[in-house]
Amino acid sequence: MKVGGLLTSAGINIGLCVLFLSLYSILRKQPQNVKVYFGRRIAEENNRLRDAFILERFVPSPSWIVKSLRCTEDEILATAGLDAVVFNRIMVFSVRIFSLAAILCVFGVLPLNYFGQNMDHVRIPSASLETFTIGNVQERSRWLWVHCLVLYIISTVACVLLYLEYKHIARLRLLHISRSSSNPSHFTVLVRGIPKSRTESFSRTVESFFTKYHASTYLSHQVAYKVGKVQKIVSGAKKVYRKFKHFKGTTVDQRCRPITFQCCFCGASSNSFQLLPSDFEQESETPVNGSSLSLPDEECGSAFVFFKTRYAALVVAQILQTSNPMRWVTSLAPERDDIYWSNLWLPYKQLWIRHTATLLGSIVFMFLFLIPVTFIQGLTQLEQLQQRLPFLRGILKKKYMTQLITGYLPSVILQIFLYTVPPTMMLFSTLEGPISHSERKKSACCKVLYFTIWNVFFVNVLSGSAISQVIALSSPRDIPMQLAKAVPVQATFFTTYVLTSGWASLSSELMQLFGLTWIFIRRYLLRMKEDSDLLYSFPYHTEVPKVLLFGLLGFTCSVLAPMILPFLVLYFCLGYVIYRNQFLNVYCTKYDTGGLYWPIAHNTTIFSLILTQVICVGVFGLKKSPVAAGFTVPLIIFTLLFNQYCRKRHLPLFKTFPAQNLIDMDKEDQQSGGTEDLHQRLHSAYFQFPDTDDIPLEGVHTAGRHEDGSGTSGESSREENTADEPKSDLSHPALDGLPVSRLRNAVISLGSIWRPQKRELPL
Amino acid sequence: MKVGGLLTSAGINIGLCVLFLSLYSILRKQPQNVKVYFGRRIAEENNRLRDAFILERFVPSPSWIVKSLRCTEDEILATAGLDAVVFNRIMVFSVRIFSLAAILCVFGVLPLNYFGQNMDHVRIPSASLETFTIGNVQERSRWLWVHCLVLYIISTVACVLLYLEYKHIARLRLLHISRSSSNPSHFTVLVRGIPKSRTESFSRTVESFFTKYHASTYLSHQVAYKVGKVQKIVSGAKKVYRKFKHFKGTTVDQRCRPITFQCCFCGASSNSFQLLPSDFEQESETPVNGSSLSLPDEECGSAFVFFKTRYAALVVAQILQTSNPMRWVTSLAPERDDIYWSNLWLPYKQLWIRHTATLLGSIVFMFLFLIPVTFIQGLTQLEQLQQRLPFLRGILKKKYMTQLITGYLPSVILQIFLYTVPPTMMLFSTLEGPISHSERKKSACCKVLYFTIWNVFFVNVLSGSAISQVIALSSPRDIPMQLAKAVPVQATFFTTYVLTSGWASLSSELMQLFGLTWIFIRRYLLRMKEDSDLLYSFPYHTEVPKVLLFGLLGFTCSVLAPMILPFLVLYFCLGYVIYRNQFLNVYCTKYDTGGLYWPIAHNTTIFSLILTQVICVGVFGLKKSPVAAGFTVPLIIFTLLFNQYCRKRHLPLFKTFPAQNLIDMDKEDQQSGGTEDLHQRLHSAYFQFPDTDDIPLEGVHTAGRHEDGSGTSGESSREENTADEPKSDLSHPALDGLPVSRLRNAVISLGSIWRPQKRELPL
Repeated sequence: MKVGGLLTSAGINIGLCVLFLSLYSILRKQPQNVKVYFGRRIAEENNRLRDAFILERFVPSPSWIVKSLRCTEDEILATAGLDAVVFNRIMVFSVRIFSLAAILCVFGVLPLNYFGQNMDHVRIPSASLETFTIGNVQERSRWLWVHCLVLYIISTVACVLLYLEYKHIARLRLLHISRSSSNPSHFTVLVRGIPKSRTESFSRTVESFFTKYHASTYLSHQVAYKVGKVQKIVSGAKKVYRKFKHFKGTTVDQRCRPITFQCCFCGASSNSFQLLPSDFEQESETPVNGSSLSLPDEECGSAFVFFKTRYAALVVAQILQTSNPMRWVTSLAPERDDIYWSNLWLPYKQLWIRHTATLLGSIVFMFLFLIPVTFIQGLTQLEQLQQRLPFLRGILKKKYMTQLITGYLPSVILQIFLYTVPPTMMLFSTLEGPISHSERKKSACCKVLYFTIWNVFFVNVLSGSAISQVIALSSPRDIPMQLAKAVPVQATFFTTYVLTSGWASLSSELMQLFGLTWIFIRRYLLRMKEDSDLLYSFPYHTEVPKVLLFGLLGFTCSVLAPMILPFLVLYFCLGYVIYRNQFLNVYCTKYDTGGLYWPIAHNTTIFSLILTQVICVGVFGLKKSPVAAGFTVPLIIFTLLFNQYCRKRHLPLFKTFPAQNLIDMDKEDQQSGGTEDLHQRLHSAYFQFPDTDDIPLEGVHTAGRHEDGSGTSGESSREENTADEPKSDLSHPALDGLPVSRLRNAVISLGSIWRPQKRELPL
Repeated sequence: MKVGGLLTSAGINIGLCVLFLSLYSILRKQPQNVKVYFGRRIAEENNRLRDAFILERFVPSPSWIVKSLRCTEDEILATAGLDAVVFNRIMVFSVRIFSLAAILCVFGVLPLNYFGQNMDHVRIPSASLETFTIGNVQERSRWLWVHCLVLYIISTVACVLLYLEYKHIARLRLLHISRSSSNPSHFTVLVRGIPKSRTESFSRTVESFFTKYHASTYLSHQVAYKVGKVQKIVSGAKKVYRKFKHFKGTTVDQRCRPITFQCCFCGASSNSFQLLPSDFEQESETPVNGSSLSLPDEECGSAFVFFKTRYAALVVAQILQTSNPMRWVTSLAPERDDIYWSNLWLPYKQLWIRHTATLLGSIVFMFLFLIPVTFIQGLTQLEQLQQRLPFLRGILKKKYMTQLITGYLPSVILQIFLYTVPPTMMLFSTLEGPISHSERKKSACCKVLYFTIWNVFFVNVLSGSAISQVIALSSPRDIPMQLAKAVPVQATFFTTYVLTSGWASLSSELMQLFGLTWIFIRRYLLRMKEDSDLLYSFPYHTEVPKVLLFGLLGFTCSVLAPMILPFLVLYFCLGYVIYRNQFLNVYCTKYDTGGLYWPIAHNTTIFSLILTQVICVGVFGLKKSPVAAGFTVPLIIFTLLFNQYCRKRHLPLFKTFPAQNLIDMDKEDQQSGGTEDLHQRLHSAYFQFPDTDDIPLEGVHTAGRHEDGSGTSGESSREENTADEPKSDLSHPALDGLPVSRLRNAVISLGSIWRPQKRELPL
């Protein structure tokens, strides 16, 4: 590729980007797109933009860029959570290190490469891009020490920046914990692998275990239930209600809405209750007397156990409980909204098999993916294509068809295949059995990351046919040499990859093409009412790997082929602005890992650095400069040592919480007298049924809370009530007017098998 | 090698073994060797065998074998600790699995190999050993499924046995914990990385931290001191005393001994106290008033913190304490005798560097070792030798010299080099900074194990020059094939290795050649009095790798070259008897890892199994039997899954203690009222100076205990004494007659800077 070609391509892509950004700044002002571009804010503020037609709406404006840049880190933390801040820090780190690298390499290394060999220099625009890579430097050149020095500077600065970011994020993580002082998940331990007893229910087993071994700190517990008959009825009712609501249109909608915000048990009758068969109440007496819907079958071997202090919960979560490590497995519970309920009742014993199986599965998938890649590479060679698919011969005689098929078809097919990767990895991660949405997404993020690095970087670098790649992999000692040969050559491809795939993905992220299209189809083709289903949480599992891949490309190409760096810096700057905007306006944070994406980013960056250094050793070796190669080796050791230090110094904070902070928080609570209040709220914090959709069944949830809250407060006044029967204290003032039997039936049938189990407090 | 040659070699080695065993059974009856062969029992029972000259002493007898076989596991556990039991179980496992393998392979596989190819079968004694390996089976032979089946049976039985052993040892480990109910180490947490404060001493910092964050369970603490001036004086005094004792002979010895068992402060004057300068007492006032020997400089950033219950100690040991993971690093303390004091004051921050550096160091050592190996391999080729060392030409003309140099010299040099390995690895492990002797030995064991497997197995299998080996290693995909080619060929070498190195090492272990020689030299050449320095603890770091290496050889050769198995079974049977005898009679158990050698043995066995299976896949591939190769692959996956299961099911028990057991023990203590007693003993449990040698300074130790015990009991009666000064409560009845000032000086100067810091108990 010539420089002219690259610049043309860059020009076109910049033009497209500017076009898309302008388009975005117009589209975002259109009222019909407000759900696409301001999903989070709509959900939060429940307001609507004005619907009037004014000219301002059709003039592009950079105001959103200014807003995005002005917003502080604290604002992002408050609106989008710690993970968003971590993502933002990854962008900041990338912008910083690649700006420095760009300056150093473009002004220091690039001229050396260009004037390295006494070749006939043509005019720059028509010079081959390869004259700008290290491939153009003479063997045994004295100037290779500049490359080595620049590599040293970049590595050192990257390490320093990484350290500072790690420190900053660790601090934020601690702050995040101490700020969310009323977070019930800090008091809650998820216990799995509860042994099945023939005589006792799970609930009794849990109670007797924790009263025996953690009597001083144990507060209460709540067994998780398998979604069985009742949940099916509930979800069936939900579906019917949804359809009902949709077909009746706005009238039903408006009639229903006020009712849904009232407690269903406070006397108000709603549509949803009419959906339940009237004989359901009579039937529901049966399970309480214990026969068909016998609880131990429906319970699963896991429970939420609440403790009096955060520290006590942490201790129980971290300590091996019994001599069988597969039983009474404890871990800090995820937050209520983060729990992935359908994995909660997987037997703990299965999990290691699932882990191993999905690991094997994703490795197999990674390698199977080579097959379409090879096939596509075959497509670019016209002769092969004609041989394989003879019927195409007629079509391929036309020139524009040839161009289309060889030029666009391969990349389109590749892109389609690539789009299947994140959902597949997400599926693998789901099968793995994580108990929280955030864990699932994090696990998928790692899988996609490995996949991307393998399939975009290594397969392209070690290109050729798929089989020759596997052979190349089988001789690790030759890999530095092979990489050293291949990376400068492939740098052109990577540069165009940044220009096209990188910038295009940013534009499409900003434009929310999928959302726009979907809204268009719904409104003008299907003629459906808009609903609020467009609220997504940020797709970390696709965006983090993307950004880290570009970081990898940047590091590996930096010294060897510096032409990529300016484009990369532009990508990161643009990404910085766009992603901030998206966090503020589009995505809704439903769950948070608490900054656990940072160790992934850190490890990947260290990997990129070491890969770069190894490749440089190989390149210096190829250039017969043993001094430069020798000087680079200590850098590898230094980078590894730095990583080891970070693992010791910061990583533990991302695996657990420090006792000191939790104890301090506990003490503060005690001094402010907020403990009792917190404990009462705990009982209802992990209510399992139903989800917090805005449909009338919400009422059951509230009723459950009422029942529970009253149960707790009522308990202190009636200690003699030590019966084993499910508690049905319904002393809440709002419920006073209702007959207890009806309430009880309603709670049992809908709120279902959930019964809060409370421990008798010792007096 | 021919079968006849092998049988001759076996005959000679068996004869030698019988000779050595008989010799041992005579030598052990000689009174002058009693310290060599009954070191442990002498140390324990303080008795001497009769010195009379009777004929029985010179008749070999198998009584020791019977005794060794009759002794139960409980006896071994009681006399030699859990590690010895683990070692014994490794032997039992090996005997079982290789007996089965020997039966299966000798009767099932061996005939198939022998009749595999239509070659001219000569008479068996002169048949080449290679006709018994799988190399003799025809390509595409239908009988390869027998090999595959036998491999399946061996792998499955090995896994089942491994599982049972793991379970058994895990149970023993728990039993070991619950039996040692008064073990102070269960109540003690070793805290490292205590932050240095300008205003407070370490002791005050520790106290304020634990009173703040673990007030309800914290009992007291004891800061570890750097061995400074005082310790030098103490060890100097020890040395002088030792020499003094040696030169004065028995008279001084007998005069001293009774005194040493009395408390030095009870009025009895001993020799040792005369060694102290008389003006020492006056000098020793100075440090207390705080100047030259100012405490904060001598203290190191680590302390033993005592807790009220075992569970509390476990919790503090497991939880991350503060937001800086390099500070307030807690771990359960090793037992008093196990502590490696000189590593205790290494700054915790250094440890990760030390770990990485020693890791790198041992890898470099492993590869550097190839140089002498290559050199020695060169020695076996006479022409090369003559070329390199021309002056040898004259000598080499004589035939017996040639045989000597080519036959024995290489193995002698190799053995000498091999003898340097365990001390070197021990040195590396010491530099790594472990805080206990057992940890150090375990770490050395792992290093020696990797070294042995690499240098004996892989280097021999992939033999040739050292450089070609490294190249062979660099292409992992070819390794199964290379191994498949090499292992059957090298099986002959391994068989003779078992015969010579294995059996010889057992004989030399039994004979205690080093001890015998040393005693002979001492008595008849140096004419020194015997002393009790011959008490060694069992060298797990050399014996465990040896046994595991033979296991590896057995598994890898089993199906491919079954001739090795009968010899191996004999080795393990003999080893079983001999090691049991050694545990019972010779070695003294000073410290114990609590069964932590088992996971090492388990992992190595799994590694051996998988290596065997991979090699078999290679061999089946070479024999062009894709069915057999294909059937072996699931076996590899099954073995990996089994290992994963064991890691989940049993390994956690070897990393921590289960809360349930500790809480049960705590409750038992409370119910039996033994808690107070235990707490009082805790204060003196980790007394730092001096060691428990049987020299007069023992007295100081006792005094320290007295002082401390009285301090604790006295404290409850005098709560108003909250002064910051070092406590010198000397209300023990035995000390009543002495002037306090003298006692105080003595304690300060000798027992030195150790001051028990007790917490004021809240009333």
